Amino acid sequence: MKYDNLLEQIKDRMPLKRFEHTKGVATTAIHLAEKYGEDQDKAEIAGILHDVVKFADYEWLKQMIISEQLDPLLLSFHHELWHGPVGSVVAKNEFHFDDEDILQAIRFHTTGRAGMSNLEKIIYISDMIEPSRSFPGIDVLREKAELDLDEAMISCVTHSITFLIEKKQPVFPDSFHCYNDLIQKRGKVKE
Amino acid sequence: MKYDNLLEQIKDRMPLKRFEHTKGVATTAIHLAEKYGEDQDKAEIAGILHDVVKFADYEWLKQMIISEQLDPLLLSFHHELWHGPVGSVVAKNEFHFDDEDILQAIRFHTTGRAGMSNLEKIIYISDMIEPSRSFPGIDVLREKAELDLDEAMISCVTHSITFLIEKKQPVFPDSFHCYNDLIQKRGKVKE
Repeated sequence: MKYDNLLEQIKDRMPLKRFEHTKGVATTAIHLAEKYGEDQDKAEIAGILHDVVKFADYEWLKQMIISEQLDPLLLSFHHELWHGPVGSVVAKNEFHFDDEDILQAIRFHTTGRAGMSNLEKIIYISDMIEPSRSFPGIDVLREKAELDLDEAMISCVTHSITFLIEKKQPVFPDSFHCYNDLIQKRGKVKE
Repeated sequence: MKYDNLLEQIKDRMPLKRFEHTKGVATTAIHLAEKYGEDQDKAEIAGILHDVVKFADYEWLKQMIISEQLDPLLLSFHHELWHGPVGSVVAKNEFHFDDEDILQAIRFHTTGRAGMSNLEKIIYISDMIEPSRSFPGIDVLREKAELDLDEAMISCVTHSITFLIEKKQPVFPDSFHCYNDLIQKRGKVKE
């Protein structure tokens, strides 16, 4: 990969298993960027940095959400959702990437949102289907990712929402808005 | 029932099958109101009127949403969602019921919302489980309705959301907010 140096810089921030996942996301994101005509460098950078604060202290993440004036609704939801938005701040302030598309891809990689760019979709999908992931139904998601970016995104966010609903867990509103946005743009709403 | 006269007034507004459904909703709502200590008269009235404009002309419903300044987001979603909000206006203007709880129960009986009253939950649930309804999983919903109003409401709104997602249909945001609100109030969010 082109950004091996960046990869080395984040290695100590996470367990080896998560580091392998990170490499997998970057590799998958490069592949999908090539397939769908998006910037492969941006895909690699966003892939490498998407989980940069995944193992940060929750209290610190919370303080970052407050001090950086990130969406305060995050604090009413599971801390698992905090590392995306805070990661985008760290990518900017600490790693000095200021490309808004890279930063948004990191910010929304866990929840999705309405109006995602192709790069954001690529990171969201890559996070779910990279080679080290394994869960029932992943083969279908991988197949869809090779065929149609939006259909793959619909399937991935649907998978996330369904997973949470089955566990009777709250779903961050951005994920619902992401789902509705993609479904409504798909233009197959029955009249 | 106490409001047979009201029932007669709405009979010609719908096919016989829907009229039987309406009677079923009213009867179920009275039963649940008694069980959960809510006003049985209100439950009966809201049950009778919940589908009062279900078979109204779509263009008229649309104009009512605009002229009555109902949530304009409704117009971006399936017209199946329009009869609740418009029905509450008709219940007030034509049938002269001005009890806000009755009107809200009619308004949100299809979508639910965050912060539902017990009467609203009773009408939403009754609409789904009344005796003439039949679909896979309804027995579980009926059992829950006898045990715990909030758990029944969670199961019913989850059923609706899952049904729509499986069909890749948009989900009106109030339904998601309803789900999240109930789940978060349930206090079982994993930390």
